[in-house]
Amino acid sequence: MTTPAAATPAASRLPQQSRSRATRRRLLEAAVECLAELGWNGSTVTVVAERAGVTRGAAQHHFPTREDLFTAAVEHVTAERLAAVRADTGELPPAGPARTEAVVEMIVRLYTGPLFRAALHLWVAAATEEPLRERIIALENHVGRESHRAAVEFLGAAESTPGVRETVQATMDMARGLGLANLLTDDGPRRTGVVRQWARILDAVLAAPPAG
Amino acid sequence: MTTPAAATPAASRLPQQSRSRATRRRLLEAAVECLAELGWNGSTVTVVAERAGVTRGAAQHHFPTREDLFTAAVEHVTAERLAAVRADTGELPPAGPARTEAVVEMIVRLYTGPLFRAALHLWVAAATEEPLRERIIALENHVGRESHRAAVEFLGAAESTPGVRETVQATMDMARGLGLANLLTDDGPRRTGVVRQWARILDAVLAAPPAG
Repeated sequence: MTTPAAATPAASRLPQQSRSRATRRRLLEAAVECLAELGWNGSTVTVVAERAGVTRGAAQHHFPTREDLFTAAVEHVTAERLAAVRADTGELPPAGPARTEAVVEMIVRLYTGPLFRAALHLWVAAATEEPLRERIIALENHVGRESHRAAVEFLGAAESTPGVRETVQATMDMARGLGLANLLTDDGPRRTGVVRQWARILDAVLAAPPAG
Repeated sequence: MTTPAAATPAASRLPQQSRSRATRRRLLEAAVECLAELGWNGSTVTVVAERAGVTRGAAQHHFPTREDLFTAAVEHVTAERLAAVRADTGELPPAGPARTEAVVEMIVRLYTGPLFRAALHLWVAAATEEPLRERIIALENHVGRESHRAAVEFLGAAESTPGVRETVQATMDMARGLGLANLLTDDGPRRTGVVRQWARILDAVLAAPPAG
């Protein structure tokens, strides 16, 4: 990327770039925390900048609008979380019921933590706030595709077998429903039984899908 | 209920009571419509009163606070919807795969219409608005129990069989996730495949639950 500004010696440019990247990352992480705790109404650029220890001006330099900031934040943290999950797949049990259960637990964990709570606030705000709607639809499509692909891979699901694709989708839908059920109260005890049972069913279906 | 006011002759009291009940019902229905369309931020008592064709004072006579109005509205419309579903169960096919599919479709329909959308806005608002939180937790418990009971009944599920209770719960969680997936875009085409596949699985599991 040779631009006029590239006349600056590389040595003095790099720390500046890396400080800027660090600021950006702090803003994105603070934005997800704010959304999860305070909801859309309470999450302003000012509140996020304060939490990130950055001036409001610096925040606006990185993200010109509130919508830019929060959409980028949910996208960034989701990508990081998926990457962390991918890095951990070596720890999963080998193919079989124990692996299926571990994968279902992993998916459900993604949907019941602060990231899902943040995404939920953004999602519901997008239903009535025009400037958010198109962005969140695009984000939802992107995240949905990535999560589905990861689930298929971790489960070792044969998507060409009729019904398997829909069964994996149903698993993501159930996880989303469990996330919602965990919003106001700790749904953990009930969820444990549902997840265990779902994993048993999923394992049996992946091994031998029911005939159409 | 004999009170001093009961001195009014019954004939003139009854029409007044029935007008009051009709006003109350109009307010409750308008409140659910507003929530579904405008979200929590846009749903004020004034907006609901206008839509119901009632003065703001009359609305406040029935529901002293905004929280009273919207909590009562979601509760009322849910009860009406469940009663309507119960009234229609005679139309369901006899026990077997066709009935299971019809029941799953019915449950998912409840979670993908305007009533769920209204409840979702209220639910997410309750995560950050203290005056709503306790009421919505109580409402969620009540509605969850009623819906679960109805699902068990319509499916003819034997809850004493290990795993059956959790399988029905998973069905409700999946339906809730499908409701969320339908918030910003029409998820109907994808949903059809998921519902059909889940109905097949559910039917097989209810007939012969997988061993623990």
